[in-house]
This record gives sequence, C-alpha cells and structure tokens, in this order.
Amino acid sequence: MRTGIWLVGARGSVATTTVVGAAALRAGLVPATGCVSALEAFDGVPLPGFDELVFGGHDVVGTGLVKRAEQLAEAGVVPRGLPGVLTAELDAADAEIRPAPPGTEEGGDGTPDQASAAGAIVADLTGFRERLGLDRVVVVNVSSTQPPAVPHPAHASAAALREALARGERPLPVSSLYAYAALRAGCAFVDFTPSTGARLPALDELAREQGLPYAGSDGKTGETLVKSVLAPMFARRALRVRSWSGTNLLGGGDGATLADPERVVSKNASKGLVLEAELGHAVEGGVHIHHVPDLGEWKTAWDHVTFEGFLGARMTLQFTWQGCDSSLAAPLVLDLARFMALAHRAGVAGPVPELGFFFKDPVGSAEHDLAAQYASLAAWARSVGAPA
Amino acid sequence: MRTGIWLVGARGSVATTTVVGAAALRAGLVPATGCVSALEAFDGVPLPGFDELVFGGHDVVGTGLVKRAEQLAEAGVVPRGLPGVLTAELDAADAEIRPAPPGTEEGGDGTPDQASAAGAIVADLTGFRERLGLDRVVVVNVSSTQPPAVPHPAHASAAALREALARGERPLPVSSLYAYAALRAGCAFVDFTPSTGARLPALDELAREQGLPYAGSDGKTGETLVKSVLAPMFARRALRVRSWSGTNLLGGGDGATLADPERVVSKNASKGLVLEAELGHAVEGGVHIHHVPDLGEWKTAWDHVTFEGFLGARMTLQFTWQGCDSSLAAPLVLDLARFMALAHRAGVAGPVPELGFFFKDPVGSAEHDLAAQYASLAAWARSVGAPA
Amino acid sequence: MRTGIWLVGARGSVATTTVVGAAALRAGLVPATGCVSALEAFDGVPLPGFDELVFGGHDVVGTGLVKRAEQLAEAGVVPRGLPGVLTAELDAADAEIRPAPPGTEEGGDGTPDQASAAGAIVADLTGFRERLGLDRVVVVNVSSTQPPAVPHPAHASAAALREALARGERPLPVSSLYAYAALRAGCAFVDFTPSTGARLPALDELAREQGLPYAGSDGKTGETLVKSVLAPMFARRALRVRSWSGTNLLGGGDGATLADPERVVSKNASKGLVLEAELGHAVEGGVHIHHVPDLGEWKTAWDHVTFEGFLGARMTLQFTWQGCDSSLAAPLVLDLARFMALAHRAGVAGPVPELGFFFKDPVGSAEHDLAAQYASLAAWARSVGAPA
Amino acid sequence: MRTGIWLVGARGSVATTTVVGAAALRAGLVPATGCVSALEAFDGVPLPGFDELVFGGHDVVGTGLVKRAEQLAEAGVVPRGLPGVLTAELDAADAEIRPAPPGTEEGGDGTPDQASAAGAIVADLTGFRERLGLDRVVVVNVSSTQPPAVPHPAHASAAALREALARGERPLPVSSLYAYAALRAGCAFVDFTPSTGARLPALDELAREQGLPYAGSDGKTGETLVKSVLAPMFARRALRVRSWSGTNLLGGGDGATLADPERVVSKNASKGLVLEAELGHAVEGGVHIHHVPDLGEWKTAWDHVTFEGFLGARMTLQFTWQGCDSSLAAPLVLDLARFMALAHRAGVAGPVPELGFFFKDPVGSAEHDLAAQYASLAAWARSVGAPA
Repeated sequence: MRTGIWLVGARGSVATTTVVGAAALRAGLVPATGCVSALEAFDGVPLPGFDELVFGGHDVVGTGLVKRAEQLAEAGVVPRGLPGVLTAELDAADAEIRPAPPGTEEGGDGTPDQASAAGAIVADLTGFRERLGLDRVVVVNVSSTQPPAVPHPAHASAAALREALARGERPLPVSSLYAYAALRAGCAFVDFTPSTGARLPALDELAREQGLPYAGSDGKTGETLVKSVLAPMFARRALRVRSWSGTNLLGGGDGATLADPERVVSKNASKGLVLEAELGHAVEGGVHIHHVPDLGEWKTAWDHVTFEGFLGARMTLQFTWQGCDSSLAAPLVLDLARFMALAHRAGVAGPVPELGFFFKDPVGSAEHDLAAQYASLAAWARSVGAPA
Repeated sequence: MRTGIWLVGARGSVATTTVVGAAALRAGLVPATGCVSALEAFDGVPLPGFDELVFGGHDVVGTGLVKRAEQLAEAGVVPRGLPGVLTAELDAADAEIRPAPPGTEEGGDGTPDQASAAGAIVADLTGFRERLGLDRVVVVNVSSTQPPAVPHPAHASAAALREALARGERPLPVSSLYAYAALRAGCAFVDFTPSTGARLPALDELAREQGLPYAGSDGKTGETLVKSVLAPMFARRALRVRSWSGTNLLGGGDGATLADPERVVSKNASKGLVLEAELGHAVEGGVHIHHVPDLGEWKTAWDHVTFEGFLGARMTLQFTWQGCDSSLAAPLVLDLARFMALAHRAGVAGPVPELGFFFKDPVGSAEHDLAAQYASLAAWARSVGAPA
Repeated sequence: MRTGIWLVGARGSVATTTVVGAAALRAGLVPATGCVSALEAFDGVPLPGFDELVFGGHDVVGTGLVKRAEQLAEAGVVPRGLPGVLTAELDAADAEIRPAPPGTEEGGDGTPDQASAAGAIVADLTGFRERLGLDRVVVVNVSSTQPPAVPHPAHASAAALREALARGERPLPVSSLYAYAALRAGCAFVDFTPSTGARLPALDELAREQGLPYAGSDGKTGETLVKSVLAPMFARRALRVRSWSGTNLLGGGDGATLADPERVVSKNASKGLVLEAELGHAVEGGVHIHHVPDLGEWKTAWDHVTFEGFLGARMTLQFTWQGCDSSLAAPLVLDLARFMALAHRAGVAGPVPELGFFFKDPVGSAEHDLAAQYASLAAWARSVGAPA
Repeated sequence: MRTGIWLVGARGSVATTTVVGAAALRAGLVPATGCVSALEAFDGVPLPGFDELVFGGHDVVGTGLVKRAEQLAEAGVVPRGLPGVLTAELDAADAEIRPAPPGTEEGGDGTPDQASAAGAIVADLTGFRERLGLDRVVVVNVSSTQPPAVPHPAHASAAALREALARGERPLPVSSLYAYAALRAGCAFVDFTPSTGARLPALDELAREQGLPYAGSDGKTGETLVKSVLAPMFARRALRVRSWSGTNLLGGGDGATLADPERVVSKNASKGLVLEAELGHAVEGGVHIHHVPDLGEWKTAWDHVTFEGFLGARMTLQFTWQGCDSSLAAPLVLDLARFMALAHRAGVAGPVPELGFFFKDPVGSAEHDLAAQYASLAAWARSVGAPA
C-alpha cells in the first residue's frame, strides 16, 4: 500500500522533521517515539508501513531538504549525523517538491485566477501519484497559519464554488485552495494548521461527492495537549475552574507568524476551545502568544489555573511546558497520513471526527477530552481496518 | 436510607471539614463543589442524600468539633461564619465521637489484647447504628498514616486471625484492627490513608464471608491526581517519560506525620504506583515529602518531568500544585460513603475496584488512569444502582 | 513633627491599606513588616514617628474607609478584626477626605479651567495643614495609572505653564495638576504611579523655586523588584541575558486599569527600564499584563529568562511571584512620606534621586540595582538627617 | 606572569571545561562570557592574561582530556567542533596530569602515610612549576565533595600537624592533604568544593607562615547564587521570610556523589548559610538534593519561598533554575586562579575574604550578599593590584 504524503510547506521545520524521521524509521535508526499509530493498540490495523510512505510537496522556499535538515540538527531538533546518513532519501523527497504555483501566494495580483492555480496543483498531485506508482496520496497542510477566511458566497455549496471559479474569481483562502485541489485530484486532505482548509460547506460537499476523507485542524502538540487532560480532570472531580491563563513564548518562524495580530486570531480561537467544551462554562484568562526569537525551534508555555474546591477553598495549578513543536508535530503527521490512507481505502467520505485526538479544533467533533478521543480513535481504527 | 459515616480520626482536619461541609450542604449554604457523586453523571443513582448522612467516630483528641471548625476557618479551609451557623449540627456529631478504645494506640503496653479492643469498637459502632436508627454504617479511616504492617502469620486467613486473637495476641496494625472491627460490626470499610486497613488476606476473606464491601487506599487528592492524567497523556502520545521527580511541601499535622521516615514509606509507595502502571516501565526520580510547618493546612507540590519525543528530542514539563488537602479530601469522603452505602445495599462483597477513581493505590485494580477509572465508576454506579 | 500624608486616590486599596496599617502600627497591634524606614539602618534618623502621621486626601469614590477596610479584610489583604478595632482612626482619616474637585477628572467638559481646579486643591491642602496643625504635608499619588502625557508647550517652563493656566487652558495631565497644586501649596509630592506627576520641566522648575522635593515614579513592589536584583546578578557574573519575558496576571482595579491599552503604555515603559540599565544592552521579550478579575487584590507574575554562560551554554531561570500589591505598596507609602518629610525639612529642592530604591522609574537617577539604591538611600538619610 | 593552574580532579567535567575554555579564549574563538575577571570593572588590574595560564593536575581517572571534551560536547556543555580544534592544547594539558599519588584515595589501607603522600604531591607541583618555568602555581580543588572532616588533635596547630605526620599518622581528610601539600610547595590553594581543604587551624597557620593565600569554599554557581541576591532583597524591603525550601535535581557525577548521605552533609551545610546570614534569623525549609541521572550534566533547582508583608499578608516566590554546573563553574575557576595569582604576588597570606563573591561558604567572611561581595572584590582587586 504505497502511500504518498504531499506536504504543503514541504521545506518548513515540521515537514523536514517528518521526512527525516520517516527515513530514519525506515532505516531502523530510531524508535517510533511519538508515533501514536505505532502503539500496541494499533497492532493488526492495516496501516501503510513506514517503509511504504513516499514524500513530495509544495513550498515557496528553495533551500533543499538536506540543508534544512542540517539547520534542524544545529538547532537540536534532529540528531546530528542523521542528515548525513539520509542524504539519498532527503534528495529523493526534495526531487518531488514543486514550487508553489502562481496564484497560491497570499494577496497576489489576482493572476492567475484560482481555477488555474488549482489546476496546477492538481497536475502536480496527479503527476506525483502516477510517476511513483502510489496507491493513494494524502495532502497535509503544514504551512504557516493564515488569518481567518473572509466570508464569500461561494463557500456555501460545491455548485456555488464551481461557478465562482469558472467566473475567474478568487473566493478561497490559500489553505482552502489546496484542499479544493487535493479533493479534485482524488486525495485525502489534512489541515495540521488552524487555517480554514476544507472547513467550508462547499468543500465538505465536494469531499462527500468524491468519497474522500478530510481531517483537521491545528495539531494538538503542546499546551493544548496538556489542557485536554487537565480540564477533564477538574470536571471529573467537580472542581470549579475559575481562571485559566496561558502564555506561550515561541521562537522561530512559528513565533514570527503568530506575532501577526491577524494570524494569531486563528490560533487563539482553536486554543481556547478545549476549556469551554470540557468545563461546561466560559473561563476567565485567555491564551497569549509572544514571539521570543532567542527560543529558536523551542517553545515554552506557562499556564496558570485558579480553581475552587469544597466550601469555596481557592487553589492554584501552574504548569510550564518546554517543548520542540517540530519534534511533537512530525510523528503526528506520519500518524495522520497513515490513518487517512486507511480511511480513504475504507471509503470514508467527509470529515473523520475520530481523528480529533490529534487536533485542537477537531472537525466534526465537539469532544476535546484526550482520553475519550483516544478511545474513539482506537475503536474506529480497529473497526475501519477490520477485514470485510 | 439513613447512612452513618463513622470516621476514624473524627476530629482531624479532613474529618472536621467533612462534617462541616455535609452540614453546610444540608442547609443549602454551599454548592456541592468537589463532590463527584453530585455530578450529573450520577443523577438517578440511588445514593443516600446529603441530608441522610449522620456522623460519628473515634479520636484520641478531645478538642470539640466546633473549636476544630473554628481553627479551620482561621486557617482558611472553611469559610468564616460557617462554624457559628452550624453549631447544632457540629455538636450533634461531636456527641457521637468516642475516645479511641484502649489497645488502639500504636505501640502501647500490650493490654488489653486486640480481641478486647475490637470488641469495644464493635460496641461503639453497633450502638451508633442502633441509637440513631441507621440503615447502615460506613467506617472511613482518616487518621494519621501508619508505617507498613509487620508481617504476621495471622494475616494469612480469617481462621488464623481468629485463632491469634483468641490466644490474646496483637497481630494487626491499628488501621487493620479498625477494619476488622468494622467488618465484625457489619459495616463497610474505607481506608482513605495508605495504612494497611482491610488489605490483608484474612480481612478480605472476612469481608467476603460477611457480604461486606471494602475500598481504599490513600485518597488521590493532589499531586497524584494530576499524575493520573498526565502519565496516560504521555503514554497515549507515545512520548517516552525519562524522569519524574516530585517534591511535596506539607504543613500541618500531615507534614509532621510524613516527616517520620517510617510512616512516609507507606505514602511514597502509594504515590509511586501510577507512573509504572501507566507508563509501562520504571522511571527515575521518585517522590519526596518535606515538612514546612509554615504552610499550615496547605500543600505545594512541584513535579519535574523529562521526556523524549521523535528522534530523541528532550523536553520538560513542570507543574506546581497549591492545594488544601482537607478541602480536596472531604468531598471525596462524602462520595465514598455514598457509593459504599450503595455497594453495601447491593450486596457487593470484598473490594470495590470501581472506586479506584478515588485512590492512589486502588485495592483490587491495577488501573491508574483517571479517565478510565471515571468511566468504570460511572458504569458501575449505574449498574449497581439499577432497579432490580 | 506632625506630618500630613495627603493621598490622591484616598479610598483605593493602597491608600486604605496605608491608613489601616499606620493606625495599627500606632496602636502597637502589628510589627512594621515591610516598612523600610523602620529597619535598624535608619535608627537615629529624625523621621516623623508613625504616631505623628495624619491622613487626608482626595477621591472620586464615596465609600467610607471603614467599609473599604472591611472589603480588604474580606479579600485577605488586612487582618479581619482590625477594621473594627480601628474605626475611630479610620473615621478621622475619612473626615479629611475631600471629593476630587471639578476639573480633575480625565477628559471632562473643559470647565472649570485647570487654574481653578488647582486652586481648589490648594485650598484643600492648606486647610488640612492648618486645621490639623501639621508641620508639613506630603502629597502621594496612589490613584489609577494614566496614559502618557500629551505634549504641550506649557510643559517646557514654569513661566509657560503659568501663562497657559492664566489663559484658561488645560495643559496638564491630571497627575501633574495634582503635583502642580501640591507644589503651589508648599507640599512635597510623590508619584507612586507611572503617571507623569511632577516629571515635567515646568514642574521641576517650580519645585526648585519653591524649595520643595519631589519623588517618583511607579512603586517597585513585585516583579520589577525581583528583576532589580536578578539583572545585576547576571551582570556581575558576566552571564549574558538573551531574553526576559514577563507576564503579569492582575485582578482587581489595577488589572482593569491596565487592561486599557493606552494606560498600560505608561506601566510597561517603567517596567522595562531596569533590564537595559543593568544589563547594558536591549533584551528580547517584554512585559505583558493581563487582567484576571478572579485574582482579586492578588497578582501573579511569571518571568522567563534565557541566558548564556561560558562557551555559549544556554540556561534558563524562571520565577513566579504571588503577591498582594496593596500589602507591598502601603508600607512604602509610609516610608516615602517619612523620608520626604525629612527631605522637606532639610531643604532638599527638586527630585530626590536617593529615593530611587522605591521606584521602577526613579526620577533623577539611572541606577536600578536594588543593592546600590539601598546603599544610596541609607547614606543619604544619615547625611540629610544629621544634626546641623 | 605565567601562572600554573593545578586542578585536583583534572579530568572531571569542571576541570575539562576549564581547560577547553581557556584554550578557546586564548585562540579567540569565544567571548569571555561568565568570566568575572574579564568585566570592565577589572580593567587595569594586573591579572595574568588568559594566554598566560598553564594547566596541570591530579586525577584518578585515566580518560584523556580530548576524549572527556568530546563527551562534554556530546552532552551540550561545550560546542561541538571545539575539542577537535583544540587537540594540541588539550594534549599539552593532559601531559601535565599525574595520577593521584598513593595515599590520597579516601579510605585506603593506611599505606603510605600522609607525609609520603604529601611529599609525592609536592614533587608533582614543584616539577610542574619548574619544568614549565611558571612564576607561580594556584592549586584548585575541583574533585568530588567529601564528607565533613573527622576531628583530630593534629588539626589544632601547624606544630601538632607536623608532629602527627612525622609519626606516620593520617590525620587529614584528602582535600586537606592536598591543601597541605600545596602550601608546602609554595602554591596558593583554592577549594571550589565544600570539602575541608585549608579550613583547619593548622593549615591556616601554615599558610600565614609561608606567606601564601588560600580561598574557598564551594563555588556559588546556581541556586545559592540566586539566593544570595533574593535574601538581601527581602531583608532590604523588611519583608519577613517564613520558609525557604530548595530542591535540587542533579544528574551526572555530582548527583551521584551527593546522593551519598554522608557527603551531602558538607554540601547542605554550605548551601544553608546564606539565608540565616542575610535574613538574620533561622528559616524553615532546608535544601534537598536528589539524583536524577537523566539530567546528565544539567541541573534543575526549584526554590519555594513564603514570606510575610505588611499586616501579615502572606505571599510566595518560586524560582526554577536550569543550569549546567560545569559551564557556570569553569569561568569562576579561571577567575579564582587569576585573582589568587594577584594575591600571591602581592604577598597576601592566609584566607582571602574578598573572594567570598565566588563561594557559598566564604572562608574568612560572614558576608553572603552578592552585591556587597562584588563591591568588596572590586575594591580589593584595585587596591592589591595598584602599583606600589
């Protein structure tokens, strides 16, 4: 079951770590730490093997993967020595990375129209699948977070969207343009960012028409992961959370992107969902993101929670998370590609709510409790993967 | 369904907070914050109402409950003003507190023998039940933690125990003497401490013979509660925990007790269980308890966790928990009494593993994941409480 | 040496705590914890005694001090029981609190002009001093932080200011209007907030003309206090600080005020000074203030510092400060009044840089190292207070 | 002014980092981050240059410095690539490392006697100085912490010590044996550990007789460094510290050594001094050290401080320090060697209290306030270093 993983943002830190890691796993150089799909619970589920994954993608960046991998080794994200050993594999993936087609940049001058841009993407995806003889391709968006979508009437239905595109309009945010093209090319689509991606009625309808699964959004890799177990803990103990204040210090490209007040709106929206969902009421505090370039590829989050116990006693929980987002995200990208290949093969069409385990803002699901999400994922994988 | 709660250590901080809180709940003065059994999930389960709970107990301390409640108000554990309003209820409970009978002190001079001491406890329990017309009584041990039990041949079976007692021996640690007497008196028994309690083959056999449930041990109120959601989080994400170091700063009586190197052995043993159970391997670090009298009724725990992600990336999670153990424990004592009354009525005999949700060292269960424990508790309560 | 303390914002939390505390000190009910001027180092310096301090002030709030003190007792800032014992003293201070005169509100309709408003303040101050037979009066601004001053030509000199006022203009921010009136009335002036206060060339000139001392600004009570010892520590050890990110969670009125993006500009400016001054270079990170009403009178600050050691090793220091700003500020208000009375008596005119120890943005001084500031304060007090 | 630095424990992490760092400084490859003696304040003081420092030492370990440096590069303590560039310098230093002579091991079989062992050390030191044409040699103990010394009558005076040694006795702990030999060989002695070193009346007398300076003890590199600025901060603000609890998680060799309950006694004694000295009263809490091998060369300290402000308000400060002890210690070893060479040249005999800035337990000084220590160091260096 040869499976293509097409990464939108294929030379970013997450994508590079994903490709390096998959190659290292194939070569037996590292254990599958951080890969959920490699847990015993999924033994026997017919997922594509790590040695059946093939990489390609789009990026605006020209720096090759070997160079990018060496930068990540310098930053402590991947082991030194690894890029050197895996040069052949990295070069092979690099050869399948295409420049982002004209019309996919944010803003832009309006040429070409989105129908043409989508066509170019479709051609790249189809070429990738055919040239490499892949059974199927999963497109995963790991590019920079975009601001929330500007509403447009063409979002309402597949027909309206088709008409707008035919008229030469540009109704779609870039992440949704990629989702549209992926579905058109017969590929499953995953949004690992908080961008809009496939979450428009028009695209949902298209996915169902085409019999294709999609999933998202915003990989749950750090602070929100911890919140998704702590919030249910308070709820199950009937303790009343009164405030929950989160501060994220981010270095690197992610920090710079999210220092943009428009883009951070998307991020904060998805980061805030878990609390109200799990606690059943709004909570004071909020999430704050600050850019600290010195942290490089690393991130520190500090959360301060005040809660109330029996007879009104006031207590506090604080946590500090010091993580490397690329290291946390990359194995989940592999997991998602494997599970989406399974879903695609099984004919799942539309959103896959059972993959909510991986996301801050799970499409098709209001469940944010990590334990419940895991149980749902495990049951689904066994069921979808069962011999007919 | 009038239910007695007989507290061993009835004038301690946990017990006093329990009695004050139950009275305040009955009077409608406070919400049931911290009471798990009051969550919506247990609506319809035929638990005794908060207004059906009646308190008594044993203690070596003579200070009355009103005075103790005022001390706790001074310490910020219960709201000022509350003890004054509830004087009648506190006095009523106080009137049912008996001095701990001779032979129940640790050490002691060997007189009277444990058969006599047990007889005195049984008489107190029986008198309480009959005098107040109670349907049943749940004995809850909330006294100071004791050192691990010294092995004795009489622990092996109910018969051996009966014979040793008949010979005038003293084979039982004090917590187990109370458990023995509770079972003899037809009462359910809960150990909220890490002491031995009913966890001896002889007492397990006796409970089954008598058709009585028992539960324990060591209420999961703070640091370990948090661990019981964080450890499964790491496991489900396939992240490898490399070290987990816990430091507990305790004031008050609890801190003083646990500054005793013998007693702390019991505590650290139960605190350490969750990690190995949930992570599947031993972890460096350990739990350390330090006595800081200035903290009074409050406690601060700091946990430092190192873990490894994809490609060996090293990351860290720290948390600081600032809580009031009595505020956290008291509502769980009410919960346990309510659930044990349900179990007793339903004829459950022996350990109740489904109450593992409440404990650091759940008797009869190897499950330490809070989410799984909660699911098990909820299913059990609905099933046991279902109309026949 | 009867000394009046005239508080602008006389019914705020800081002011109320100051008045309650001074009364409790006078009555011998509490030790002088937090009062720097009561340290042994100042023995023999002829400061006015705590029993020689007399309170009055302006406020827009009508709630009396006894009521405000009870609210602070409820919030845990002052001991319960204390307001009840000190009712007479609080009522006496309350009787000297005047409504803020028309023209002192921010914004306003332009009537009356600032000359009239200043006249009304001067009359209140003069009346207070004469009615109570005070040797001198120190005006201390403890009202809400205001946005940075809008530049105005009248700020440039005393003459320009006098002319603008004579023309019926409103050139002064409110804090500076109070400073102007204080100086006009022959009173020393202290700005405990980051507002402009006396820090205008025109007011500096006026102070020197009148032979009056002024001091400020922005009391150093929490996070910045800690920074003022940690930053010099790094500098003295030749360790290179690379980033310093501060997050402040504030409840209560202060948090609400500083949630205003205009006002917080003043605060963040003064909070940021210490790092560049002590480290000798700009540092990434910045200070962030978030409003969390649940924290009430309390505040939590988290600072995250990355630094570099020998051979480029990267290390981290984090601290969490949980404090009550009113408890920290009130004794400093007493200190400042005592030291300013000393300065006034000794004929100090203009800024008093030796009081920089108390401030985030010390007027007349670029020294931010707490140890150096303390040494300077102690030397100055002994010198100014020496018998002629 | 060619100066030898003779390291007792010359292949340990601190020593190796010191030698690597000095070579890198000489080669102009790194800035002097962490070197106090390179601060502007010491410009003009006639210290030996970094290019005048020559290394030798004793160790029981046979692994060469190049190998040790590579291990430290692997652990992230020194930059990768650096050991390879500095091979010649490291080999040169390695050639001057001698096996610790018989009789210097702890315990041992009593042969040879300490007079012989001291003679062997003296011969090594003298050979080093003469062979390399050094103006003077500073011996610095950076070996493992030893338990507190067992009292012995020979500690009382130089004469008593000489007699005991002449009788073939073994009255000295190992660190003191090295100090004795250093003084006998005409070398200044520094104890960077909490071991006894020169702190015996007999050795003090000997140092004065010989006109040699000594300094110590226990380099102030992390948690205690922070305490030495925070404790004076509380004192200067008249805030009453009520408890101060410190937890240290140490990996590597240091952690293993200090997991020994006998050796940790020395460490905890020196770590506890600063609080009582700076606060003026004993404080609850204490310092705890736990061994967490996973931390490798790194260390995390968590300190929890409760303090009281005006009117008894209770507040908390916590800090977490994540540092690399070798990176913090190595530049101080260079500093101490440079300052001791200065002292030696200037004829300072006996302890050098002005070097207390560098130590947890400054010999000859009760001052623990970092700011005061720094001022004293700077004044002393300028005075001692002034042209005659």
